[in-house]
Amino acid sequence: MIMKTELIESFLEVHLERTLPFHTVKEVYQYAVLPGGKLFRPSLVWAVLSDLNPELYKSSQNSKSAHALLSSAVEFHHTYTLLHDDLPCMDNDLERRGKPCTHIKYGEWQALLAGDGLLNISYQLLAKSNHPRTMELMRFFGWALGPKGLIHGQVMDLSHEMTKSFSSTLRTHELKTARLIQVAILGSAILSSTKSQRNLEKRLWRFSQLLGINFQLIDDLSELVEATLSEHELDVNPWLKFPEETFIETKKSLERFELLAKELNLIETKAIVKNYYAKMLKGIEAGKGNIDRHLQNKVDLAPVLLLLNRFS
Amino acid sequence: MIMKTELIESFLEVHLERTLPFHTVKEVYQYAVLPGGKLFRPSLVWAVLSDLNPELYKSSQNSKSAHALLSSAVEFHHTYTLLHDDLPCMDNDLERRGKPCTHIKYGEWQALLAGDGLLNISYQLLAKSNHPRTMELMRFFGWALGPKGLIHGQVMDLSHEMTKSFSSTLRTHELKTARLIQVAILGSAILSSTKSQRNLEKRLWRFSQLLGINFQLIDDLSELVEATLSEHELDVNPWLKFPEETFIETKKSLERFELLAKELNLIETKAIVKNYYAKMLKGIEAGKGNIDRHLQNKVDLAPVLLLLNRFS
Repeated sequence: MIMKTELIESFLEVHLERTLPFHTVKEVYQYAVLPGGKLFRPSLVWAVLSDLNPELYKSSQNSKSAHALLSSAVEFHHTYTLLHDDLPCMDNDLERRGKPCTHIKYGEWQALLAGDGLLNISYQLLAKSNHPRTMELMRFFGWALGPKGLIHGQVMDLSHEMTKSFSSTLRTHELKTARLIQVAILGSAILSSTKSQRNLEKRLWRFSQLLGINFQLIDDLSELVEATLSEHELDVNPWLKFPEETFIETKKSLERFELLAKELNLIETKAIVKNYYAKMLKGIEAGKGNIDRHLQNKVDLAPVLLLLNRFS
Repeated sequence: MIMKTELIESFLEVHLERTLPFHTVKEVYQYAVLPGGKLFRPSLVWAVLSDLNPELYKSSQNSKSAHALLSSAVEFHHTYTLLHDDLPCMDNDLERRGKPCTHIKYGEWQALLAGDGLLNISYQLLAKSNHPRTMELMRFFGWALGPKGLIHGQVMDLSHEMTKSFSSTLRTHELKTARLIQVAILGSAILSSTKSQRNLEKRLWRFSQLLGINFQLIDDLSELVEATLSEHELDVNPWLKFPEETFIETKKSLERFELLAKELNLIETKAIVKNYYAKMLKGIEAGKGNIDRHLQNKVDLAPVLLLLNRFS
């Protein structure tokens, strides 16, 4: 029972409509959020619910359910980080999801304020829920995404602390990428699990951490399909800076993730990941010539591709 | 029983310490937050508690109380708006509270991320409270300060919609300035009031709205003490653009505010405001020559100064 991305997107629209003023500024938010990207994180929210509590899944498919609110909250939070990351004083990007960045289209202050607005909305949505564990969810959300979490990952990246060692790179990925994926998965579990499933939550933490790490490392790998790499990419890509360690970590985290998915019987959740990695694999295989050239044969990718293949 | 600002500030320090990572980035947050400014908003949180529930006031003077969390949350939220407002793509300011702005001292991305961090922390702190009305408080907080609230005031300001008419100016002040003051006052009332006091909350809404409006209009007036005004000030100051209406609104809102303070018996709360306006009045009286010159005798300030005088 994989949640239709159309439905996820319709919740995003409804939740924006309810939290934005009746004003032309709406357009800026809609431009930034819609059409949704891969919607990987909100899809995980629904998949975890479907795996842990199929009964609740059936009755939760409306915009007021705790899961719909979390689903939109993680996507809005993700979008706010993109809006701010793309600004000239951060990564200074021009394009995002195949169109001009929000600050290119509407100006910097509009993008900055829409980012602030989406950050607020993500908490506003969570606070609308009546679920008895909402406060616990909000504490986890704040810890994972605040100054000790995602934002610290951004600091490590921008300050170049990230690239000082492989362990710093891994820590940055854990904070900047994994935390939001962990909020989607563990956050959903907090809202989904029956009493007898509470003991799962510790293993779901590890499961979502592994996913966050290999999600980012495979994304880093896919960046190498370009014929020429930007100076920034040459500076930060862990496959170029720490090829051996990156290869080992990717392989290890994929293997452990797969094992844990099986153990926890997360069928729908694994299907979402499988689907995503199938697409990534296609791109990586198509650009393998360029990748090999950039890696200068320092690592043999075959085992990782084999894992991704088996996975898909 | 006016809360010592030293204690308010010590809570800010403790709450920062608990929510920030062990990392040099702490310095950026501490620079932005400390030493505190006038601490007007957190002082209101404590004054309202002292007025509505003196017993609870006595037992709440520790960093884990719901009021201490709200007190820091409003100040951190205020600081985040200052950090972002001062950035080059917004107001492009260089100084704040007599020292270089955070982005001047530490760079733009540090100020942007510290702003995002403080925004997160403000919600994180509220979520730590065990108070039974916490969810209600968070919903109010998000509505008042999110895209329909404070952020919409920023949009109206930056887009110059604010200066199109006096009512637009007033609306902008209501959103950009009053909402945070309303969160301090009404937010504290939500955490303070006994069951028999619930009926007060509607009048406290009006009370805090009036305060927010005249707080900003008097601040606007005090900007005119400078011998020469910046182009921006000439463009936006309501005393220059809409002198008659601004005068009438200031007088009316001060009178009504005073009446309501008496009616609601808000002794400590009025003392905080009185204290603040006494300082403002001093500056305004000292610079009256410049103010009159800028206003070109379009309004006679005497009645407003009389009110402020009586008030102090």
